[in-house]
Amino acid sequence: MFRRTVERISFVIGGALLGAIGLYEYEKLGPKLPAPLPTLKPPLTSIVPEFPWTGWRDTAINDLFERDAYITSYNRRLRHPNWVLEHLTEESLKRGEGVDRSKSRFLEDLDIPEKFRARLADYVKSGYDRGHMAPASDAKFSQVAMDQTFLLTNIAPQVGNGFNRDYWAHFEEFCRRLIYKEGFENVYVFTGPAYLPKKENDKWYVKYEMIGSIAVPTHFYKVILADRADKDDPKKRFYALGAFLMPNERISDTTPLQVYNVTLDSLERTTGLTFLNQDIVDKSVPLCSVEASKCIIVANPKHIKEELRTVLPEPLKDKSETKVNI
Amino acid sequence: MFRRTVERISFVIGGALLGAIGLYEYEKLGPKLPAPLPTLKPPLTSIVPEFPWTGWRDTAINDLFERDAYITSYNRRLRHPNWVLEHLTEESLKRGEGVDRSKSRFLEDLDIPEKFRARLADYVKSGYDRGHMAPASDAKFSQVAMDQTFLLTNIAPQVGNGFNRDYWAHFEEFCRRLIYKEGFENVYVFTGPAYLPKKENDKWYVKYEMIGSIAVPTHFYKVILADRADKDDPKKRFYALGAFLMPNERISDTTPLQVYNVTLDSLERTTGLTFLNQDIVDKSVPLCSVEASKCIIVANPKHIKEELRTVLPEPLKDKSETKVNI
Repeated sequence: MFRRTVERISFVIGGALLGAIGLYEYEKLGPKLPAPLPTLKPPLTSIVPEFPWTGWRDTAINDLFERDAYITSYNRRLRHPNWVLEHLTEESLKRGEGVDRSKSRFLEDLDIPEKFRARLADYVKSGYDRGHMAPASDAKFSQVAMDQTFLLTNIAPQVGNGFNRDYWAHFEEFCRRLIYKEGFENVYVFTGPAYLPKKENDKWYVKYEMIGSIAVPTHFYKVILADRADKDDPKKRFYALGAFLMPNERISDTTPLQVYNVTLDSLERTTGLTFLNQDIVDKSVPLCSVEASKCIIVANPKHIKEELRTVLPEPLKDKSETKVNI
Repeated sequence: MFRRTVERISFVIGGALLGAIGLYEYEKLGPKLPAPLPTLKPPLTSIVPEFPWTGWRDTAINDLFERDAYITSYNRRLRHPNWVLEHLTEESLKRGEGVDRSKSRFLEDLDIPEKFRARLADYVKSGYDRGHMAPASDAKFSQVAMDQTFLLTNIAPQVGNGFNRDYWAHFEEFCRRLIYKEGFENVYVFTGPAYLPKKENDKWYVKYEMIGSIAVPTHFYKVILADRADKDDPKKRFYALGAFLMPNERISDTTPLQVYNVTLDSLERTTGLTFLNQDIVDKSVPLCSVEASKCIIVANPKHIKEELRTVLPEPLKDKSETKVNI
């Protein structure tokens, strides 16, 4: 009885997926095509079928792309991803022959219509790094996969020094460490931007910069689900889950990751996203409670030095400027 | 040949719509249901099919609802619509028997999961009106239709005095006037919020208030497409199109609508939405160039009086306060 229900549901889902693919393929046909309308309730049935509308798709489109190392949902208004999903395994973290980051370069994503596309020019002289959501280092298994992580549909503006190049990079390494050091077999990571309000004169405001037409997130999140065989019962799976939300600003390397640990529920409320079935959430233990994973961003001496350096006055950058001053 | 192409495309669209409906119905089954995964490219195929994921739907969900007088796409992050679409005709603007606005009341939309729902409590004492996107006055044809316009999935926070109760209300009346005065047979209106940046110290920032978990838009837009039979060739249609974007703030009743006339392209770029096929856009003449429609918000003497009143100091609201002052 239950099996039959599951079977029926599978058909519905299969149909839905076929439909979704059809919808996606149809979208690629471009906006010039007149489309007949479905039958709507009165008085909206009164819209004539010949009317060349957008075909009643939701006009608030998220562009969903499957790449070799990630899946991304791109936000056309903010011009960066809503979320990027990865699946890390021991296999996926192996370096393929000749795969080299220096061969990759940042590229605009031509799959996005021009008017909604994040542009390389928007980032130039913006003061922000082109921050990977799915890190390039997670896609060392093939050059194609790594190149794809440099598409701007996988990128959002991040503070460089002290964040993208430091704390955030360590955080990305922390995710990989769950595989190669903590014995997890699968690590699923959702990564994306968030916008949080601040209090000002007793009211709450969200404020963020725009670089060209790209929005600069106030925060970034990761939802990490890691699993491995249960030690007590190898037929069962052991799940650990953590949600982290951190400001898009310099963070000291010595800050423990726990500081940014939030509930999945509060992260979902603030981003408007639903990451996981309640079922798997209920089964999981908090990632930071798993003794081995520790949730510590191990400070690299090089970075501590860097941190010290930035407290000192900035050295003069321009030689001509130096001359003038002399 | 062309007909056959159109026929084939119709099948694709039909399939896509069935799929979309299936998807929508599936979503209503709730988040507890484990769903099998579609086959993805490596290494994402490595995600086990039994894994109780969200079923690979995009987790950035817009809730799409068809009501009797409008269709809405709800934004779970901002907790107000992305857009609301209406179709006005002479028929739809007639008042049904006994339809009365005072019978309607604002309601939370229970079709939205609790954690993403706009709440009545968020609006209380916020200082903002619960602004209709599809106006109640456009749904006088039935009480059910009017009641539905009071669901919070059709509502966004608007400045009350001088905007929602004044200029914006006249603008809504302007849309109806295209039917009952300007001879258009159909008026299609997309209405929704927008977020525009302001310059500050040479950088651009978007800043908006949050009331509870609802975002307060900096601007509101309407895209208006009106059509009627062509006077020279009754077999042809005559299309007029206008896009308007105005700040969510007090606007003088005497400000001509042309001030807020923007190109559809720029509105699409800023909202991330695609409202119409290029085909219909190319066919249309600018709404404000249609002599009869004039694009003038006719100032109502009552409102001009109101405007004068608000320049005067506010009368004391609280009696107890008055006593203290005496």
